[in-house]
Amino acid sequence: MLVAVAPGPSEIVAKAPAGDWVPIAPDDLLVMDLASDAKGRARRVVIQLMPAPFSQGWVGNIRKLAAAHWWDGTAVTRVQDNYVAQWGDPEADNPAKAKKLPAGLAVVPESEYTSETPEKIRMRIKVERAASSDKEWGRGQSPCRWDRHSKTYDCVDVSSLYYPLTRYADVEQVYHGWPLATDYEQAWPVHCYGMVGVGRNLSPDTGSGAELYAVIGHAPRHLDRNIALVGRVIAGIEHLSSLPRGHGALGFYEVAQGDERVPITAIRIGSEVAGLPRYQYLSTESASFAAYANARANRHDAFFIRPAGGADICNVPVPVRVAK
Amino acid sequence: MLVAVAPGPSEIVAKAPAGDWVPIAPDDLLVMDLASDAKGRARRVVIQLMPAPFSQGWVGNIRKLAAAHWWDGTAVTRVQDNYVAQWGDPEADNPAKAKKLPAGLAVVPESEYTSETPEKIRMRIKVERAASSDKEWGRGQSPCRWDRHSKTYDCVDVSSLYYPLTRYADVEQVYHGWPLATDYEQAWPVHCYGMVGVGRNLSPDTGSGAELYAVIGHAPRHLDRNIALVGRVIAGIEHLSSLPRGHGALGFYEVAQGDERVPITAIRIGSEVAGLPRYQYLSTESASFAAYANARANRHDAFFIRPAGGADICNVPVPVRVAK
Repeated sequence: MLVAVAPGPSEIVAKAPAGDWVPIAPDDLLVMDLASDAKGRARRVVIQLMPAPFSQGWVGNIRKLAAAHWWDGTAVTRVQDNYVAQWGDPEADNPAKAKKLPAGLAVVPESEYTSETPEKIRMRIKVERAASSDKEWGRGQSPCRWDRHSKTYDCVDVSSLYYPLTRYADVEQVYHGWPLATDYEQAWPVHCYGMVGVGRNLSPDTGSGAELYAVIGHAPRHLDRNIALVGRVIAGIEHLSSLPRGHGALGFYEVAQGDERVPITAIRIGSEVAGLPRYQYLSTESASFAAYANARANRHDAFFIRPAGGADICNVPVPVRVAK
Repeated sequence: MLVAVAPGPSEIVAKAPAGDWVPIAPDDLLVMDLASDAKGRARRVVIQLMPAPFSQGWVGNIRKLAAAHWWDGTAVTRVQDNYVAQWGDPEADNPAKAKKLPAGLAVVPESEYTSETPEKIRMRIKVERAASSDKEWGRGQSPCRWDRHSKTYDCVDVSSLYYPLTRYADVEQVYHGWPLATDYEQAWPVHCYGMVGVGRNLSPDTGSGAELYAVIGHAPRHLDRNIALVGRVIAGIEHLSSLPRGHGALGFYEVAQGDERVPITAIRIGSEVAGLPRYQYLSTESASFAAYANARANRHDAFFIRPAGGADICNVPVPVRVAK
């Protein structure tokens, strides 16, 4: 039987021209080294920090904490299945024993969980809403489209790719390398697999950035706009996701129950780490990304008999590679 | 500051009356014992098999394979991060060395990836579509609602809980204990975290059931209707999700690269396993489940400052417990 076979997402990414890859500045990386595993193998986790305008108060704190080598000797303290791996000071909640934070950390307000929707998206939304006969978007409609004339992408063509309407937000999109949601006025990063956020106590606390977590399960979207997201893991997520789950409440490691916390030897900003590979991400404004996202949503490669016709934003992860 | 605090999802589940819990027959469980871990601790994974009308050809094969003790001495052969853990015969693709399958396994056609939409849902859809002024469902609308008068749930109130429209399917719902999607005519189980499916080669092969996988990452919904789903892990998923990732293509373990396959000592149907706990799931047709699902979608417990107003179907996992 002859089967029409189209390139799969990974083939499209492999063939993307060099110009579609955007370098990630080492200064925008956070490099976490865990103690070696039981077989003596190194465990390094590389995190790309969130760019402006999102979460910059916490990102600034994280830069200060890394510069102060504050995390050295702390540990992964919590691994909850299908949820998060979390790290920081094991004694953070014990005022008598808690490690002292560096001076000058910002106290960031809850209003910083969101930011103004990027201007280009907002303008496009205005134009398209005005053109719509109905202010409510229906099936297959979207305020955020590929512009065939200008050949620009302000965001991925959500009309063909993503849930066209969600209850989480009116629009979801990948913009300048990051998965975002917007309600037209405000935008915010979303909790996809591998995203890194800031642990906090009850509101109005928003966390300092000293306690961080990475998502290691199905996207916990209920956390969007309730917690700061400060980056995403771009290499080594398996060193977090494959750790033993904790036996305490919420997956916290309980030493009394035989759990062993995983020591953190060092966390540094990438520009301080010798020999770090040069990472790049596939421009989300490139035609290659559009083709990749389309292939994620509509699989026509040999294995698939029925393309889904859509993909949620967390199923279109932004490709990252080491520069060739 | 006074904060209005509502019970969270786990509190609602903890308070559900005994009558809302549905026993899972031991005959509908598949119990997989992996070799003990490096510290000598037992690793048991318990899977609830899919009920009729879904995937019964493959489920029948799985019952035969378990009865023949076919899996004993096989292994977990693949662990791909944010995707699946897979098990079966490490030599399955090598005809000279492959383990012989028991006689009498069914060859199941691709048409069995879906089934007729359950009658109650179909009838409700007809009534509600007839009442709608527009055949296209708009924002916040849904063909599947809580009936305040009869106080029955054919499915969870997707209008308030789930993506009201998706490109994966017109409706998604939790029905008689399982996450389903439907296009009104056909229904099918969906690939949420922990769901168990049947590995296969290229179409028209549909797999025998001898090679199985469990989802250990963000729901890979592009696999829906492309692969048979035969159950879900209800206990011990961490023994699969925390395994080391494989270094081969697609996360297959490569012994030459230092990977070690994880031996399977036995897989049995639950009724053959002495001392198995009595498992129950929270009836998805109960008021407790409706309250739980609503709380998953609209978090008002103390931690949350901004309820999402929705949840995707894979973020409303059906609660399972050991009977008290």
